[in-house]
Amino acid sequence: MKLLKVDTIQQVLEKMEYHFGDIELKGEVINIEVAVGRTAKEDTFSQYNIPDFNRSTVDGYAIVASDTFGVTDSIPVFLDVIGQVEMGKSTDIVISKGKAAYVPTGGMVPKGADAVIMIEHIEEMDSSTIAAYSSTAPGENVIKIGDDISKGDQLIHKGKQIRPQDIGVLTAAGIRQITVFEKPKAAVISTGDEIADPFGEIQYGEVRDINTYTLAAMLEEMGAAVTIKSVIKDEYELLKSAVEAALIDNHIVIISGGSSVGTKDVTAKVIESMGEPGVFVHGMAVKPGKPTIVGKAMGKALFGLPGHPVSAVIVFKVLIGHFMARLMNKENFKLQIPAVCSVNVHSSPGKETFQMVELEQTENGYAAIPLHGKSGAISLVSRAQGFVRIPHNKEGISKGETVMVELL
Amino acid sequence: MKLLKVDTIQQVLEKMEYHFGDIELKGEVINIEVAVGRTAKEDTFSQYNIPDFNRSTVDGYAIVASDTFGVTDSIPVFLDVIGQVEMGKSTDIVISKGKAAYVPTGGMVPKGADAVIMIEHIEEMDSSTIAAYSSTAPGENVIKIGDDISKGDQLIHKGKQIRPQDIGVLTAAGIRQITVFEKPKAAVISTGDEIADPFGEIQYGEVRDINTYTLAAMLEEMGAAVTIKSVIKDEYELLKSAVEAALIDNHIVIISGGSSVGTKDVTAKVIESMGEPGVFVHGMAVKPGKPTIVGKAMGKALFGLPGHPVSAVIVFKVLIGHFMARLMNKENFKLQIPAVCSVNVHSSPGKETFQMVELEQTENGYAAIPLHGKSGAISLVSRAQGFVRIPHNKEGISKGETVMVELL
Repeated sequence: MKLLKVDTIQQVLEKMEYHFGDIELKGEVINIEVAVGRTAKEDTFSQYNIPDFNRSTVDGYAIVASDTFGVTDSIPVFLDVIGQVEMGKSTDIVISKGKAAYVPTGGMVPKGADAVIMIEHIEEMDSSTIAAYSSTAPGENVIKIGDDISKGDQLIHKGKQIRPQDIGVLTAAGIRQITVFEKPKAAVISTGDEIADPFGEIQYGEVRDINTYTLAAMLEEMGAAVTIKSVIKDEYELLKSAVEAALIDNHIVIISGGSSVGTKDVTAKVIESMGEPGVFVHGMAVKPGKPTIVGKAMGKALFGLPGHPVSAVIVFKVLIGHFMARLMNKENFKLQIPAVCSVNVHSSPGKETFQMVELEQTENGYAAIPLHGKSGAISLVSRAQGFVRIPHNKEGISKGETVMVELL
Repeated sequence: MKLLKVDTIQQVLEKMEYHFGDIELKGEVINIEVAVGRTAKEDTFSQYNIPDFNRSTVDGYAIVASDTFGVTDSIPVFLDVIGQVEMGKSTDIVISKGKAAYVPTGGMVPKGADAVIMIEHIEEMDSSTIAAYSSTAPGENVIKIGDDISKGDQLIHKGKQIRPQDIGVLTAAGIRQITVFEKPKAAVISTGDEIADPFGEIQYGEVRDINTYTLAAMLEEMGAAVTIKSVIKDEYELLKSAVEAALIDNHIVIISGGSSVGTKDVTAKVIESMGEPGVFVHGMAVKPGKPTIVGKAMGKALFGLPGHPVSAVIVFKVLIGHFMARLMNKENFKLQIPAVCSVNVHSSPGKETFQMVELEQTENGYAAIPLHGKSGAISLVSRAQGFVRIPHNKEGISKGETVMVELL
């Protein structure tokens, strides 16, 4: 096995960038009704102006605005009513100076008119005359053609994760289908002689499998399709065949446990045996999460995560979350919550330290309350709302300091 | 029709509390593999200690800690090796003073031992003797029985929305199924003579339906099952039969559009015709979103939302989002992002004003950049990352002020 030194997260991410740059996701055409949460693989543009006619925002009369200039409550102007626009219908009416036509909210503003005066500001004198009591500016109460979206405008950009309101923009432009990134396919394999099926009987000395289900759920939440979930004894041949099978049809293979430098470390050996370039990260300068392995074989990404659930969750977020975002061209924007740290927190010198926290609403924002527990404690991750990173060159966090909390 | 005055949001929420208090969701038993995003309807407790044996967190030797007290690099203590613990297996070894047994990371710490000394701190003298070079404290490198979770501990509480790490806690305790709230069933009906099927040919004067798809996607994102999506002309009889049908099998019926006090306001009349108590909110002091209707009939919640997409989205978030959270006993914790407002923002006197914003990452947090556009503009909501509320008694926001951004 190659001799590998411990890398910083930054170094690991750069190596991943270098080795994983050629891993690509195909496109998939889907209906917009099921697009929320998926990520666009193509830019989408509008073929239409929205609205494609001048639209009234009020119930009122379409007019030539200049007819009302200087008009007040006591000096109205009288206008001839030459018709009324029907909702949802085109109109042939043409407004010229001295003329007006009724338009409902959302209705088409007829040709010639450049404003709509609200019904509150007019009086119907007889069936064909109104008195207008308010000076109305050109453009007032009118959404002009293309005001919302112009023909050719970009609606969705490549890498955008679709939200409900984006569905609204797409229907506004009459677009039923978009091309999104296929879901990255992933396999989760947990190793460890002590790991047992969580739903069966366990022997004294065994523990129920936590990581397989946690990591699979995290993968799915981030938009992956989990094709394999399995628990394998810590034996070279068994793990090798499991990884071999997983590599065939997945973009990402995660092996959890078995990556500590103990007597039974087989993960790295198995990855090495799958071909070039093999393991390119073996150990990461983070706490917790040191025994992390990253490799590539058969053009696929392989991650060896620590067996301790807290470490596995953190390394997953930091490396695999990053990789999946890169696969789908996602923006770098990562939501973090500024919060005031409630107590002093110590860090490990020379390592990037991850501190789990709970968030508590305060008068002006949030307090971050550090949670402590042994690194094997899954209950810790379940109580935490997020974590704070303490860089390797920073000596802990002081009480009262504002930190950025990444959500879990 | 009853005479109704415009309410503040607080008043509307109180009336909803009063009228909707008896609307309940049933429970549904589901496998934990599909539980992420669902909300627990019952508290769940652990039947086991986790771990249920003392577990080593390192590769090392199980010892009686007091044997090593005072030991240093130059003055080691010699211990008899009486065996080795196998991973994932129970052991009969009993450690007493002067004895030691090898334990791998995750393995069972034998009876009598109260600490594990790391292999880095010992030397193997011969096959049955080690020299220990480090003073080890009682409990060191051992996760004790129940350290992570104790028998009887609460794992999940009613109202908790399940995250991947909660799945981990459940598998750790061997729990395969939990009871969650059934998905609230909802119908979305859009009205308006100008609203056309977004995917068909539209006539000049019509606009493509935006709200049906946007609101349905928002409902689904919040955990509802949308059973009906339809567009209805603004006619009393048509809307009445649509609402009647929707009330049969839904908890929530949303009618979008048709709620302005224009010539074609039929939504309130239709809700009134369905029985007691009928409409109990008609108009809300918010901008945008004034023409909001809330009612109850046949024991179901009815909402009349403004037709303008921006208003509809805001009123949805504020009222329906709140109601759905209440239905599922969710915590009051609502994630908001503190951000510094980039420019002055004006508000509407006497109304709670909602300002759409984009978030931009800055050195110490976020800047909130107000977005402007006519209220019909769906493109505005698609660009926005969230919104800021300006209370009715506050005069706008000053540049440089810190605001809380609710995410969209």
